[in-house]
Amino acid sequence: MTVFADRLTEANRQTGTVLCMGIDPHMTMIPALFGGGAPGSDASIAAIRDFANACLGQAIGKVAAIKPQAAFFEQHGSGGMQVLAELGRDAVRAGLLVVMDAKRGDIGSTSTAYAAGWIGHDAAFPSDALTINPWLGLDTLEPFLQRADATGSGLFILNRTSNPGAGDLQDQLVDGQPLYHHLAGMLAPLAADRRGASGWSSLGIVAGATWPEDARRLRAILPDSPFLVPGFGAQGAGPEKALAGLKRGKFGWEGGLVNSTRGLIFPAAAADAKSISDWNKAISDTVDANKAALSPTG
Amino acid sequence: MTVFADRLTEANRQTGTVLCMGIDPHMTMIPALFGGGAPGSDASIAAIRDFANACLGQAIGKVAAIKPQAAFFEQHGSGGMQVLAELGRDAVRAGLLVVMDAKRGDIGSTSTAYAAGWIGHDAAFPSDALTINPWLGLDTLEPFLQRADATGSGLFILNRTSNPGAGDLQDQLVDGQPLYHHLAGMLAPLAADRRGASGWSSLGIVAGATWPEDARRLRAILPDSPFLVPGFGAQGAGPEKALAGLKRGKFGWEGGLVNSTRGLIFPAAAADAKSISDWNKAISDTVDANKAALSPTG
Repeated sequence: MTVFADRLTEANRQTGTVLCMGIDPHMTMIPALFGGGAPGSDASIAAIRDFANACLGQAIGKVAAIKPQAAFFEQHGSGGMQVLAELGRDAVRAGLLVVMDAKRGDIGSTSTAYAAGWIGHDAAFPSDALTINPWLGLDTLEPFLQRADATGSGLFILNRTSNPGAGDLQDQLVDGQPLYHHLAGMLAPLAADRRGASGWSSLGIVAGATWPEDARRLRAILPDSPFLVPGFGAQGAGPEKALAGLKRGKFGWEGGLVNSTRGLIFPAAAADAKSISDWNKAISDTVDANKAALSPTG
Repeated sequence: MTVFADRLTEANRQTGTVLCMGIDPHMTMIPALFGGGAPGSDASIAAIRDFANACLGQAIGKVAAIKPQAAFFEQHGSGGMQVLAELGRDAVRAGLLVVMDAKRGDIGSTSTAYAAGWIGHDAAFPSDALTINPWLGLDTLEPFLQRADATGSGLFILNRTSNPGAGDLQDQLVDGQPLYHHLAGMLAPLAADRRGASGWSSLGIVAGATWPEDARRLRAILPDSPFLVPGFGAQGAGPEKALAGLKRGKFGWEGGLVNSTRGLIFPAAAADAKSISDWNKAISDTVDANKAALSPTG
């Protein structure tokens, strides 16, 4: 198996897009078609399983990756976690890249345990890449890097998010530069050590979509790191902002993933779908429209 | 039910200690007595269940709280998560405080889902308090605070950890002060709003034990916040350092929890225990010795 950086680049080229489908089974947003119930109940777990599987069916071969959000599975306890494990396994089997959005981070041996649980195709929660919270420091990334290197996997370090309070810590000025620039600088040598044949690194960052000038500055600090860009579509940013940190290759956009969740899996047209085939049609149309919006000619 | 701040203070007084038992079922450290196997296997899940239950048996009535580390359960997949849910439920039923050490943190509705899953006695993973990673900003704490307020629960925000690289982001100087001081200042009004009858707040911080002068400075910024102090014992700090941020009340130390994991549940004397009763004796002696070391007269 090639390294994550190269699998990602290949997925961008094969699907013709950097679009990533966020899979967040919000109980309040899943169409009635899929059922539901109290969190943790058999009915709610069946609903998130059916919904996640339906999303997966619309993602395979069409988007570059999926990004399941762990919280919406954890909310249902171990039964929900089982659904997440199955989703990761099924996506991996289908050859679809899985970015587990679990934002883990802890010290020493604890990070080692998280890494074993969340990184690699044979992990309890199978993935191609994992999102990581760096607040505890660079040494806490080491166990994740070791596991990622050993399994040909990727990491996306939370560098600058796009929520309203993201700047509270990330933007604080240290020697005249925002802290997230310093963090990017600390990551740069680690990223440079992990370049694949594609030229891209398997060490990426999460780079919010609502501040494109900064995405370009981050790109200068981390020229080879894939950017995982949240906040496209329903969360606020248009294509120009979302693509600001990516690169135009000869096959189209490369160098990251632009994630959409609500805009892709909860479009208005799908909310009242009366049948799975109606729902599939609505999601398929939405995926196509989002791909077109993100295409080099879009 | 009283609020977390008051339950914690009561637990400190009733057990006569601020000692918290970390429950991290490291597969490589669990004594042979409990069995084991490949991560995620039925044998390994049975081993962590039996081991966690045995730890719980030694904690009830003797320490102020337990702090299960989510990673060591997640590593085993949904079966491991089921053990964690049962551990939380059983501890709550026994009246023992549970600090779930899951270090969660995410934006908006995702934090709401994590909060629902991890905070409160009726959560999927039952707890009295949860550890939270603040890197994404103060707005991302809101859903956790709302759920904690609604369920009388507590939070411990990761402020300054004690690992070697903790300073990479936390210690960066902003206007001449380390960033974690600024973070503490941002938390201060939120903590002041959450004082219980005991005078302590239900909004606490994680404050590493290896730098006691700074613990005293943090105490000045957050006079009423419980400090969760990791790093006592095997991780390096002695009682003086571990207690530096706490307060001497008329019933003994108050204002936080001093956690020990390896020193409490993996003492050398228990490693080769041939029977559960031998293991119980070794752990009981170790707990007593740690309580004595942390006592006001220790």
